[in-house]
Amino acid sequence: MADMNKMVNEITSMDEDFAKWYTDICKKAQLIEYTSVKGCMVIRPYGYAIWENIQRILDGMFKETGHENVCMPMFIPESLLQKEKDHVEGFAPEVAWVTYGGSEKLEERLCVRPTSETLFCEHFKNILQSYRDLPFKYNQWVSVVRWEKTTRPFLRSREFLWQEGHTLHATREEAVEETLQMLDVYARFCSECLAIPVVKGRKTESDKFAGAEATYAIEALMHDGKALQAGTSHFFGDGFCRAFDIQFSDKDNKRQFPFQTSWGMTTRLIGAIIMTHGDDNGLVLPPAVAPIQAVIVPVQQKKEGVLDKAFELCDTLKKAGIRAKVDDTDNSPGWKFAEYEMKGVPVRIEIGPRDIQNNSCVVVTRLNREKNFVAISDIVETVEQKLAEVRDQMYQKALENRENHTYNCSSLEEIVSTLEEKGDGFVKAYWCGDEACEDAVKEKTGVGSRCIDGNVTPTDDKVCVCCGKKAEHLVYWGKAY
Amino acid sequence: MADMNKMVNEITSMDEDFAKWYTDICKKAQLIEYTSVKGCMVIRPYGYAIWENIQRILDGMFKETGHENVCMPMFIPESLLQKEKDHVEGFAPEVAWVTYGGSEKLEERLCVRPTSETLFCEHFKNILQSYRDLPFKYNQWVSVVRWEKTTRPFLRSREFLWQEGHTLHATREEAVEETLQMLDVYARFCSECLAIPVVKGRKTESDKFAGAEATYAIEALMHDGKALQAGTSHFFGDGFCRAFDIQFSDKDNKRQFPFQTSWGMTTRLIGAIIMTHGDDNGLVLPPAVAPIQAVIVPVQQKKEGVLDKAFELCDTLKKAGIRAKVDDTDNSPGWKFAEYEMKGVPVRIEIGPRDIQNNSCVVVTRLNREKNFVAISDIVETVEQKLAEVRDQMYQKALENRENHTYNCSSLEEIVSTLEEKGDGFVKAYWCGDEACEDAVKEKTGVGSRCIDGNVTPTDDKVCVCCGKKAEHLVYWGKAY
Repeated sequence: MADMNKMVNEITSMDEDFAKWYTDICKKAQLIEYTSVKGCMVIRPYGYAIWENIQRILDGMFKETGHENVCMPMFIPESLLQKEKDHVEGFAPEVAWVTYGGSEKLEERLCVRPTSETLFCEHFKNILQSYRDLPFKYNQWVSVVRWEKTTRPFLRSREFLWQEGHTLHATREEAVEETLQMLDVYARFCSECLAIPVVKGRKTESDKFAGAEATYAIEALMHDGKALQAGTSHFFGDGFCRAFDIQFSDKDNKRQFPFQTSWGMTTRLIGAIIMTHGDDNGLVLPPAVAPIQAVIVPVQQKKEGVLDKAFELCDTLKKAGIRAKVDDTDNSPGWKFAEYEMKGVPVRIEIGPRDIQNNSCVVVTRLNREKNFVAISDIVETVEQKLAEVRDQMYQKALENRENHTYNCSSLEEIVSTLEEKGDGFVKAYWCGDEACEDAVKEKTGVGSRCIDGNVTPTDDKVCVCCGKKAEHLVYWGKAY
Repeated sequence: MADMNKMVNEITSMDEDFAKWYTDICKKAQLIEYTSVKGCMVIRPYGYAIWENIQRILDGMFKETGHENVCMPMFIPESLLQKEKDHVEGFAPEVAWVTYGGSEKLEERLCVRPTSETLFCEHFKNILQSYRDLPFKYNQWVSVVRWEKTTRPFLRSREFLWQEGHTLHATREEAVEETLQMLDVYARFCSECLAIPVVKGRKTESDKFAGAEATYAIEALMHDGKALQAGTSHFFGDGFCRAFDIQFSDKDNKRQFPFQTSWGMTTRLIGAIIMTHGDDNGLVLPPAVAPIQAVIVPVQQKKEGVLDKAFELCDTLKKAGIRAKVDDTDNSPGWKFAEYEMKGVPVRIEIGPRDIQNNSCVVVTRLNREKNFVAISDIVETVEQKLAEVRDQMYQKALENRENHTYNCSSLEEIVSTLEEKGDGFVKAYWCGDEACEDAVKEKTGVGSRCIDGNVTPTDDKVCVCCGKKAEHLVYWGKAY
């Protein structure tokens, strides 16, 4: 037990230093390792297996909604990046430039894609002829590069993994519908699979994607009361299509500009999982994406029959589609308990000689350490039930945390005093729509606009939290990662 | 039918111009599209779906043999690339260099990974402590960049997709075993899933990977008699580990250098599929990786009940795990037949009003256009059987082609005259092991060494095809892609 305590104690407590607690988990749960490539990291097997599960589920959701995967080059010639003015202004300051191929200087420099709108536009132009070809509903799973100054594992790194959806439609309505559909897919994925409740809404003008007509985002509240943007969906109108001269022949054989969207989620989701569900013992993984859903820890494993029974249990669980594993290493059971708590495995099963005699085993959940004695014949049913329960409990807990840290405020003073008293969180406050007020809120209270609550149309009596003029929007404000 | 012939006629015939036939298929079957990024391409949905199937199967084989996926950065600092002397000499001339991040010049340039041995070495050094940690058996699915002068879709491009396995072992024997095991996995995958017979063997010294102690390859013979290297597996000894000072404590607490391997397969496999199985009507896809395994073409689809029956059939097939699709577009059946032949769909099912009356449908195989009238109740069984048969027939056909174009030669003159008479192919000839002879064979006959036949130990009477001295090896020679 000394060893076990030592390992667990190595994590800084969340209350003491949240940022250090976070990086401790990233390292000690073996999600990542640093490299000599500044701002980039190795995603280790346990971290990458979480990403593989995220990918598999999301990819299925994309395909169900009619999207196909493609793969674009990772390089963008400078002249191509420059075709859409807002886009290049937004991205040029943070791209990595390739200037040499071998020992030869390139005639035109190439940037490593920070995002691929320009490449998709070029491709769309090449393959689009008539309305019969539309819609194009494409996605790709790749990495992108943005030359960030300060970086943190999963949350902000110079290279990160993501998916980027890019679609092209004959009508504005259809493209808007796609933008919102994918925002819904993202929200549903976060809620159902990651047990993370999110707020959905449009970004303000100052905060939208470079080149977009409108940007929508899902925002989640982390354990420390900070907001994390977990996914974005952009409606481009026909702006890029005009810049790239992408046209199609409609039913009357007239040339028209199509309408475009893009949407993305990244490995940042792993950061969101850590900071939404983790505790001072380490990770707490949502069952849907946990690389190991149930770990079997044999007790007195050298006694005859114990390991056999453990592996038999494991096979039974695997056949039922549960990701199960036996840890038969020489470490003590106590060490193993702590290790798999640290790694956030949702369910632990303990089995020893006495359990075997009773045809039972012990099932312990990571989330609340609830302990159950279970008949071996009921193991599949029990584990399935526990995994479902755990997801629901995790979601409820995160939702309560968010609700406890969401404050309705009607003045700048109230924002400041509420945050001081209750800690960081979402502030819901009305806004007139003026960028100057948006900036003033940020400057005077520390919270920036996260997104606009689209479900609320302010009544006439509602006024801007900053200037007191008639309110246009109810806005979620917060400190952002 | 005019339309249909027009489309098919657009492919150059294989005999007329093999290279043009190849690129025609790549474009017209919508596998790829060119871009303004020189030497790079877009992999379109139909091409990418083939790659996804390859990935899924190979990834399963890697995991079954105990490998885990990770993800390394795409950049390698110049100083890291330079740590192993042979390695940097081999790769530096063909890497892309990043020199700017935004508007700032980097202190040290970064290359875009051409392969990731150096990154894995750095990582291994960071995480390896004792023999208990070994082996590390890692893989990653990423793209890599090599600044090629002349490029061709899938076969040679500046960026390509691949997997790279990287493993570290406590003993030389275990690492050698891993190297050969993965070569076997590759050969088995090509044979079973791609219906491509391959020759396995060690590369000569002049042809091995930069930094390796030994390189093994699988080589396939294309339809035009040229050899294609379809996968490689490298044994590094402890060379990289010494260069990077990677050590571990053994059971006696002594510091030891571990032994290393790496192995890779790429999107080039899609090129191999095209050039092994394709014909003048287009692609012929191996069932295991075909995005659509059975396409259902309704005949007189506007007649009542036809489309309903077609979709019912499709559902039945999908439920049985067969990748099926109904084409209910307005194109004529003849157009559709030609389109799915071009796209290499292994099985076509035709169903019209008369078939429905007879409770039957027509099943046609792409490979040999064999036509079967099948009871609708037998459709799953029939399609499964046809898919299995087609794979076997494709393999046999490819094997016969290889055997018809594999020549045993005992003099340089015989090589030249045989190739002239019978066309390009594999030449099996003995070799003394001297690099000068290897070069001379190439210069005088046009064929280079592909790999060494490890199953044959030359008897004393066997002599080098070039110098006449005692033979060390039986070598497969050929013209290479």
